Amino acid sequence: MITWNNLDTLASYQELLGLERVDLAAAMTGENGAERVKNYSVPMAEGMAYNFGAKSVDDKVLEVLAKLADEAQLVDKFAALYNGEVINTGEKRRVLHHLVRGQLGEDVIADGVNKREFYVKQQTDIAAFANKVHNGEITNAAGEKFTTVVQIGIGGSDLGPRAVYLALEGWAKVHNTLKMNAGFISNVDPDDASLVLSNIDVAHTIFVLVSKSGTTLETLTNESFVKDAIVKAGLNPADHMIAVTSETSPLAKSADYLAAFFMDDYIGGRYSVTSGVGAAVLSLAFGPEVFAAFLDGAAAADKLSTNKDIMANPAMLDALIGVYERNVLGYLDTAVLPYSQALSRFPAHLQQLDMESNGKSVNRFGEPINYVTGPVIFGEPGTNGQHSFYQLLHQGTDIVPLQFIGFKNNQMENDVVIQGSTSQQKLCANVAAQIVAFACGKDDEDANKKFQGGRPSSIIVGDQLTPASLGALLSHFECKVMFQGFVWNINSFDQEGVQLGKVLAKKVLAHETDGALKVYSDLLNI
Amino acid sequence: MITWNNLDTLASYQELLGLERVDLAAAMTGENGAERVKNYSVPMAEGMAYNFGAKSVDDKVLEVLAKLADEAQLVDKFAALYNGEVINTGEKRRVLHHLVRGQLGEDVIADGVNKREFYVKQQTDIAAFANKVHNGEITNAAGEKFTTVVQIGIGGSDLGPRAVYLALEGWAKVHNTLKMNAGFISNVDPDDASLVLSNIDVAHTIFVLVSKSGTTLETLTNESFVKDAIVKAGLNPADHMIAVTSETSPLAKSADYLAAFFMDDYIGGRYSVTSGVGAAVLSLAFGPEVFAAFLDGAAAADKLSTNKDIMANPAMLDALIGVYERNVLGYLDTAVLPYSQALSRFPAHLQQLDMESNGKSVNRFGEPINYVTGPVIFGEPGTNGQHSFYQLLHQGTDIVPLQFIGFKNNQMENDVVIQGSTSQQKLCANVAAQIVAFACGKDDEDANKKFQGGRPSSIIVGDQLTPASLGALLSHFECKVMFQGFVWNINSFDQEGVQLGKVLAKKVLAHETDGALKVYSDLLNI
Repeated sequence: MITWNNLDTLASYQELLGLERVDLAAAMTGENGAERVKNYSVPMAEGMAYNFGAKSVDDKVLEVLAKLADEAQLVDKFAALYNGEVINTGEKRRVLHHLVRGQLGEDVIADGVNKREFYVKQQTDIAAFANKVHNGEITNAAGEKFTTVVQIGIGGSDLGPRAVYLALEGWAKVHNTLKMNAGFISNVDPDDASLVLSNIDVAHTIFVLVSKSGTTLETLTNESFVKDAIVKAGLNPADHMIAVTSETSPLAKSADYLAAFFMDDYIGGRYSVTSGVGAAVLSLAFGPEVFAAFLDGAAAADKLSTNKDIMANPAMLDALIGVYERNVLGYLDTAVLPYSQALSRFPAHLQQLDMESNGKSVNRFGEPINYVTGPVIFGEPGTNGQHSFYQLLHQGTDIVPLQFIGFKNNQMENDVVIQGSTSQQKLCANVAAQIVAFACGKDDEDANKKFQGGRPSSIIVGDQLTPASLGALLSHFECKVMFQGFVWNINSFDQEGVQLGKVLAKKVLAHETDGALKVYSDLLNI
Repeated sequence: MITWNNLDTLASYQELLGLERVDLAAAMTGENGAERVKNYSVPMAEGMAYNFGAKSVDDKVLEVLAKLADEAQLVDKFAALYNGEVINTGEKRRVLHHLVRGQLGEDVIADGVNKREFYVKQQTDIAAFANKVHNGEITNAAGEKFTTVVQIGIGGSDLGPRAVYLALEGWAKVHNTLKMNAGFISNVDPDDASLVLSNIDVAHTIFVLVSKSGTTLETLTNESFVKDAIVKAGLNPADHMIAVTSETSPLAKSADYLAAFFMDDYIGGRYSVTSGVGAAVLSLAFGPEVFAAFLDGAAAADKLSTNKDIMANPAMLDALIGVYERNVLGYLDTAVLPYSQALSRFPAHLQQLDMESNGKSVNRFGEPINYVTGPVIFGEPGTNGQHSFYQLLHQGTDIVPLQFIGFKNNQMENDVVIQGSTSQQKLCANVAAQIVAFACGKDDEDANKKFQGGRPSSIIVGDQLTPASLGALLSHFECKVMFQGFVWNINSFDQEGVQLGKVLAKKVLAHETDGALKVYSDLLNI
């Protein structure tokens, strides 16, 4: 029997508040520090590991975090979710993104449909379509192959698929599986569409229009932009566009599209990368097999998240340590720092995933809560970040918890030796060095050169960023965010905070404004 | 006579702490709100305006902030800086980035050289070189024109020039002044260089190697990558590379480069976009006239920063309001939200500019301070951010001050009308709506749909993002960061916090590690 309780009503949380704080710099020093880093590691899917040696926890804290996991029934709540209960209570919806990549529990029948079968059918249909495009069965009107795919979507229809495309572009090039180049149009700013269109060959491009409702203003506007460009090129838009939308949307059965593939209300935008939202553009870009491997990696990580033992459930452990840092230690924000240029936009995806899910001030029953919830997420790839904002992370007045990601091998199988080491070794040496620098610090007579240390971080280490390990990484963070939402007793699957801006923007466009809003509208010449 | 005092020793700061807090939601409601937004606006350079109607200040707070500006001698300190005093006391250096775009004070003679003349000579030399490349006087060995320029640099040699290139790429296209496409290689991750090189035609590319010391490991490593690629293409690297470096660096007089242009120790990396660091790549990409217009805009904004009146000095006012929010109201972070896709990487540049400058815990004399300094900076363009992390900004448990940027007109002169409005109007309507939504909020019986409001923001409004307005925008933030550093009594021009990581990374590469560092090195297979 599941019960939903606020974090501050839980006995284990009160116990956490009373625990002695860990002196991280001391704990990480000497051979004890070495032992700690060896022990504080949990296997992840696809051969990766979550290492939390440099987090501000010790065995005692971990013991109470395990109690918290039990008391908050985290794994039971996940089971309720994947078995199809209405976990998104605000919008009265099930939450089924795990079902696109496997089935962890019972059959989920909704609206008379077996949802796993529905999702698999979309994947199969998309794969068949992509194969036909790649082998030349589907071509442009002149009978020429399509070479480029451009996604038109915003938010979850943009950030996740874009991050994944960039993460695998180099890998796909060296594995000869980059079938089509991909572009992305998202912003309602007309210059976004104009610039993307100016850089592609429209005659050889398929556009993927992604909108669940078929009414997202940004996306419809950009569709119109693209249609104009296709017509200007003397072509028929219906030969160049496909839709990913819900079965009930105006786009679903329109003759305006070469094909339509379907999504539903049970997968929120920010959890939709593994659904048709990502499947279409990524299967076209990389081939359906690569997309399938990506799903397999995510499925393997999902399965780990069903373990009740926190030392065998890396996403849940990561979530619990994050709660400890935020609610007990009072740290702000979380920086996500991948030492992999291919993950350049992965932090931007996590920004939506995490902040839109857990940036809430009421519990799942709509009652105000008395503790902080989701942190601000930001980040850039290392080593670039080291030459940018790490100064503040090392010597600033706030402590920001860090989440590093690193791989032993690079993707593109090309490297140079300079001063006795490869670039990949330099990259890895830097992330190892940063973890210890943040945790241990360094004393100096000159206070300006002193590093306080005690700045906690974790690292996810993998062999290589591949479709499968990327899928596992994605699932890790999706599950982490979900578990944190369970701990905070909030609904991580709605987003009421985006509504007011939409309502007021419509008023501005209808010239139905007064007061300050009218002055701003005038200022901006609307 | 300038005196350097900690913020908490100033009478005006104590007065600020005692002031009554502004009820922003109330202040922004009704006709009073409209009056407030009209009045709380300060002209910026290039026809822009800094509007702070939605900030948590009132006339009384502004009065004391003006006292603080006087008591902390902000404008006098800026004068000391541009007149060539050694303001970067830690590294015993002058701070002269303003001098590349104009001269606000006395001649600055350093090392026997008039520095303004030195900087202008570099610009002139770069312009002459760029013109020769554009008109075909300088070609590749086959006598063909160069079509692409690739910057090799990291940190300030990457983020600023990259942000500016992206900001003006579309504008340059429609103004027929995109002379060469630009690419950027920065990360020591070998996949960064590999992917960029796989997407360009090396035979028609000029590479700009940017390293002040000529010893930056990431940059030298990537130079080697690029040289390998050039040699593999059967070409001579010396025909394809130029250097931007200091006169004393090993790169300065090397036959390995087509040409070398010079920088010096008085312009830090994060303040170097307007120096030779940005001049070479941007003059090659857009032509020297566009780069000169960019400098003119920055110079005009610099001049405004000499005004003692806070209502005529937008950068200083912005800085002071930021200090009030951070040190008195206790708000965290700052989100920079440009409603302009062209500014997609401007927040990443500001992240370095602000966090590396002001993420400090000691004052300029190396003494610990007892107040918070620079905030975490993050941001993405609107409307994309609205579909991502705005949920947390509206309904999360922390208040994050917001800095919007918007333009009345788009850059690429192409737009569509959908549902009665252009995309540009939709873009502007959204930013107007967001400001009011954040400030005023909205009550609702359902607490999940309630917006607390009271979330402060400012907006910089301009006619269009052009080379000149972009220059003014850049200067605004450079001066804001500088003024905040003066208020906090810290040195905004050194970065000792990046040193420890470098030292430890060298140890890892030399296999001179023990304890935790050795374990992490093993984990990462180094």
